Amino acid sequence: MDQVHRERIKAVRRRLEAECADALLVTHRPNVLYLCGFTGDSGALLVEPYRTTLFTDGRFTAQAAQEARSVSHVETCPGPLPLGIGALLKKGNTKRVGFDPNRLTVAQVKALRTAAGHGIRWAAVSAVVEGLRAVKSPQEIDRMRRAAILGSEALQEVFALLKPGIREFEVGAEIDYKMRRKGAQGPSFETIVAFGGHAALPHARPTARRLRKNELVVLDAGAILADYCCDLTRTVFVGRASRRVRNWYQAVLDAQSAAREALKIGVEAGTVDAAARKVLTTAGLERYFVHSTGHGLGLEVHEEPRLARGQKQKIQAGMVVTVEPGVYVHGVGGIRIEDDVVIHARGAEVLTNAPHEFMEL
Amino acid sequence: MDQVHRERIKAVRRRLEAECADALLVTHRPNVLYLCGFTGDSGALLVEPYRTTLFTDGRFTAQAAQEARSVSHVETCPGPLPLGIGALLKKGNTKRVGFDPNRLTVAQVKALRTAAGHGIRWAAVSAVVEGLRAVKSPQEIDRMRRAAILGSEALQEVFALLKPGIREFEVGAEIDYKMRRKGAQGPSFETIVAFGGHAALPHARPTARRLRKNELVVLDAGAILADYCCDLTRTVFVGRASRRVRNWYQAVLDAQSAAREALKIGVEAGTVDAAARKVLTTAGLERYFVHSTGHGLGLEVHEEPRLARGQKQKIQAGMVVTVEPGVYVHGVGGIRIEDDVVIHARGAEVLTNAPHEFMEL
Repeated sequence: MDQVHRERIKAVRRRLEAECADALLVTHRPNVLYLCGFTGDSGALLVEPYRTTLFTDGRFTAQAAQEARSVSHVETCPGPLPLGIGALLKKGNTKRVGFDPNRLTVAQVKALRTAAGHGIRWAAVSAVVEGLRAVKSPQEIDRMRRAAILGSEALQEVFALLKPGIREFEVGAEIDYKMRRKGAQGPSFETIVAFGGHAALPHARPTARRLRKNELVVLDAGAILADYCCDLTRTVFVGRASRRVRNWYQAVLDAQSAAREALKIGVEAGTVDAAARKVLTTAGLERYFVHSTGHGLGLEVHEEPRLARGQKQKIQAGMVVTVEPGVYVHGVGGIRIEDDVVIHARGAEVLTNAPHEFMEL
Repeated sequence: MDQVHRERIKAVRRRLEAECADALLVTHRPNVLYLCGFTGDSGALLVEPYRTTLFTDGRFTAQAAQEARSVSHVETCPGPLPLGIGALLKKGNTKRVGFDPNRLTVAQVKALRTAAGHGIRWAAVSAVVEGLRAVKSPQEIDRMRRAAILGSEALQEVFALLKPGIREFEVGAEIDYKMRRKGAQGPSFETIVAFGGHAALPHARPTARRLRKNELVVLDAGAILADYCCDLTRTVFVGRASRRVRNWYQAVLDAQSAAREALKIGVEAGTVDAAARKVLTTAGLERYFVHSTGHGLGLEVHEEPRLARGQKQKIQAGMVVTVEPGVYVHGVGGIRIEDDVVIHARGAEVLTNAPHEFMEL
């Protein structure tokens, strides 16, 4: 990985030239991980023209030396990291340092300015690393494929447990356990298990509610495997579904297919969202679709691009996104179908491999 | 809980008067949860003199209505929350709005200023809600006691699995599963399971490494139960330990007792850290103790106060902290013993209830 990290640092430096900055301060943990391999939760990477410095604290010194072998130097800070970063800048030759205004708090920037002194000019430079991360390499896609298969297997394995009487949090525990037993580092977000009316909340948290006969069940879970996330949702029915529920399911499935087919190189992200929305509008369900169609996925469970209304970002080969339209009807329940998709020149490849057809258990 | 939330909002308003601000914008998720009960991960609460407004997006509208019953109004924003917040401020009477510079990014404050226009003055007001949260009510301490007992049980139950051949991540999966089965919403941080030399990293992430005979095992895990965290660590030896390892263990245990005894109302947080450090210094192990002695615990796994070198914050009744000295020796392993402790007028009460004596399995 050392060579991969060096290439990524080079790409950052090329972007910095365009921004007229000498250096970039990277503080967001997934960005630090992407650029140097460090996984600790106290870290900042300063990318200068001829060196890269990883700042951390004493808890992570040994770990940083093991993980971040491509950096020039690991600096253990006895106090807050901005003080250490400022001190290093003060005695160096760098004059103009880029920072991401979306990733640093007002207090952090103030502390950095004070610590670095008047010799350093700070320039707001947004999303340099996020932009690189949005397009995955074949090696990253391999990891994401493995994560997606792991998540798909775990989700399908709990279908057998969906009998009346089981509690939401019990099902959640089983999904998480199965993912971990298969090697996942952990869930990529808090697993959603929602029965019946509770499924009308898109982000329902599992409760002690027991499954009853003739209810919808929404399962939305993700695993982190080798640092990369998957994120998938399946909705099943326990009992015999009404025609209305079947029609809703089919509409969501059709919306998902439409979005997947719209995922082509060069189209705007908003177009993909519009494709799903159009199907649900035709079915008279647009008002029940209360979120956007999907989001980028990688080291984080939510990253660029956003497949949402009006988004102008262009779809590129190597992007990995979720496609997850849904409908949520107060008092009845919800239906969401979500897959992870990678965009190739030849079209979209679905990484998750759980079945889509309507299932009555 | 509605009445509890109203009291907390009143306490915020009292603090605001001292800060000469009309209103406070609260964006940090645990702070929003503390003040109004909303658990969604897209939320901001504006506390004005005569109303409180919760801003969220369409995914959380139904959930906000259910959870945040004490707020005056839930505002669903079609776009970024700062736009909705700015629009509401623009047409209201509030003039001076406090925001926490530690919780808002440079970009968020810029967006807020633009959206709210020139009629609003923004004042940096730090840690108003964090200050309230640092002192727990009896009801909060009850929840934390239950979380601590749950975590203690789960950790002890996996001791039986610590046989040569088992992998770190398998043990991690079992701990997390046991916590979930007992009702935890999830782990409060990524569970640490470290065998042998790997345990020399204080924040080791579980790997596929297999346990060998005659190794130290560090288990550090926490559960979230009813929104409150626990966090505990035990270190055991699989096989027969050398005299050196036994001496280290005893020194860490003595350091922990010393810190616990130093936890008295009115002492500075730094004094508690110094008490643990002194014991390890006397034992010649000070250089192996690479982190601070502990941290506050509550809705978050790291909150105020910090039990670290030089910290001036005074210990108060109702504070809940971890006490977790450790030693880490490169090539050999690590030993950490961590408990959760609540400070009462009569002294410190240990909430976690797993045994402390040196165990050879």
